[in-house]
Amino acid sequence: VALRLARKGVGRTSPNPPAGAVIVKNGEILGRGYHRRAGLPHAEIEAINDALSCGVSDFSDATMYVTLEPCSHWGRTPPCAVRLVEERFRRVVVGTIDPNPKVAGRGIEILRDAGIEVTVGVCEDKARRLIEPFSVFITKKRAYCALKYAQTINGIISLSRDEQTIVSGERAHRFVHRLRDTHDAVIIGAGTLLADDPALTVRLVRGRNPVRVVIAGRRKIPPQMRIFTDGAARTIVVSPSKNPFDGTPPKSVEIWHYEGSDYVPVEYVLRRLADEGIMSALCEGGAKIAAAALAERVVDRVYVIINPRIFPGGVHCPDEEIFARAGVISLTDVEYKKLGEDILLTGRPVYG
Amino acid sequence: VALRLARKGVGRTSPNPPAGAVIVKNGEILGRGYHRRAGLPHAEIEAINDALSCGVSDFSDATMYVTLEPCSHWGRTPPCAVRLVEERFRRVVVGTIDPNPKVAGRGIEILRDAGIEVTVGVCEDKARRLIEPFSVFITKKRAYCALKYAQTINGIISLSRDEQTIVSGERAHRFVHRLRDTHDAVIIGAGTLLADDPALTVRLVRGRNPVRVVIAGRRKIPPQMRIFTDGAARTIVVSPSKNPFDGTPPKSVEIWHYEGSDYVPVEYVLRRLADEGIMSALCEGGAKIAAAALAERVVDRVYVIINPRIFPGGVHCPDEEIFARAGVISLTDVEYKKLGEDILLTGRPVYG
Repeated sequence: VALRLARKGVGRTSPNPPAGAVIVKNGEILGRGYHRRAGLPHAEIEAINDALSCGVSDFSDATMYVTLEPCSHWGRTPPCAVRLVEERFRRVVVGTIDPNPKVAGRGIEILRDAGIEVTVGVCEDKARRLIEPFSVFITKKRAYCALKYAQTINGIISLSRDEQTIVSGERAHRFVHRLRDTHDAVIIGAGTLLADDPALTVRLVRGRNPVRVVIAGRRKIPPQMRIFTDGAARTIVVSPSKNPFDGTPPKSVEIWHYEGSDYVPVEYVLRRLADEGIMSALCEGGAKIAAAALAERVVDRVYVIINPRIFPGGVHCPDEEIFARAGVISLTDVEYKKLGEDILLTGRPVYG
Repeated sequence: VALRLARKGVGRTSPNPPAGAVIVKNGEILGRGYHRRAGLPHAEIEAINDALSCGVSDFSDATMYVTLEPCSHWGRTPPCAVRLVEERFRRVVVGTIDPNPKVAGRGIEILRDAGIEVTVGVCEDKARRLIEPFSVFITKKRAYCALKYAQTINGIISLSRDEQTIVSGERAHRFVHRLRDTHDAVIIGAGTLLADDPALTVRLVRGRNPVRVVIAGRRKIPPQMRIFTDGAARTIVVSPSKNPFDGTPPKSVEIWHYEGSDYVPVEYVLRRLADEGIMSALCEGGAKIAAAALAERVVDRVYVIINPRIFPGGVHCPDEEIFARAGVISLTDVEYKKLGEDILLTGRPVYG
């Protein structure tokens, strides 16, 4: 239940991790809560407030189930571990330790020192998966990067470089919109921008639009593309040029000027996103950016949608010229799921 | 139950279709049988004999469940439909009609004319799948062709053209051996022969070795390759040369001389196999033969094993130069199955 609650917060809590909490006494749920947004109370406090609002105020026989270790430090809110001690919980069951070096076991220490019985590692795989982006963000000081693309069986994402080919089906499209909803930002390359003129918004499911980031090279970008004019979300162009546009830059668009080479590293983008408190990014290709991200070893999770067709040539993803620098990549913790006619394959890359 | 029985015969009954039969009376099974091998009794007769051997001889209240329409013609055995009439079955439940134009409903006609109640199309999808090779064989006068290959996510079957890369895992290998067991012949190209020196035998599961067929081009083949010397199964080389070997042809090997162009069509091979009563073939690649078979539109089923890795370049399958002549191919009736770390994707190609 706590995990399910926590999932409600995914994509909303940046730069905090999503978390869920449930208070149980004699098999009965007294309160539930999840972390809604940075600045709002953490899951534990939400659950306590929920219980209080139902007239429960004695937690001395209650157990708090929480997906993530209660925090031990003063951030925007007071430390939750201290609050749990104050409320005299008898037992706390924790999904997984907080990877934040400021916490990392100290929350549990506070609880144990106060004589509270603590169990750690219940449904740990799922609890960890939930904070996968936060773990990367807090330990690597860059945004977590999930790479997503849709291909045919023979690894082709488009029949031609200049035009969009719709490779996957309706169910897969809905899934991609769900991914956009649960990631703070979306990254594409200029090639994809020009070929597809995508909106990169969440339309097929309920949700909020991610920040949109275009990684541009030296090639000029037409300012009339959809993402620069629809005003649907914050939009950023990262470029080695001071003005990457073919004409006056659209007013609402932010330009991040990269001063290194002509080639903007994906890692640079992820670090700048993290500097702005943006915790997770979904890289939607195309083939070159996908290859660059993999070759830079900054991809934390891959989502490949495989459509059961075979194309007689076209654009391979990842781009083989760029990707040739990388070694063999294996996916671990692989999961498969049918999405209509398509199949979704996801896993974490292990760089060989 | 009848379907399960029938499956025991798969890969053994060539040039007959596999079939299974069960005799039921008042919810009790009186007899069961399946077609074991061409020349031996059909499933219905096996089931009747099974019942007779248990002392049952009155079938007037019994129902015969059979996966395939009882035959109506004299082949190596008398027509089963006539036997069912003689045994005075009350009811016959048929999985699917026999696609053989010599039967094609006539068996059911015989039963109905004799006043037997007949139901057709029970578990029809499965019953049809069972005789998929036979259907192709009997209607197209060529061996059924299943194409199988193992690739990475990005469609690569080998890191280099000249050396073998083990792409898939142990479970997938066992599955391939099962496929060999259930197909009458295995087809490979000379490139695969030279790169892999495969045995093409059934070792990881119990079963029988298929006939081994190599499609050779003008390039000479060394006679010391494993399949020419191990004596494990009938071995055929199809070639535009009278002697495709680099030296004296090994004695035990049959040479089929193709007199057309330098390029031996896969269809030619499938027709010659059918002429010899060989009903089904499993094409195991490599990339060129796979592309040729798809471009010739003779592939009746595709089995792709996808290993969750991404290779930085290598051999794409199907070979894109040869395959470019083909259009987009979609798979229909797609099924997915986990094989350890790998995923098996199978379906029937629809040529666009």
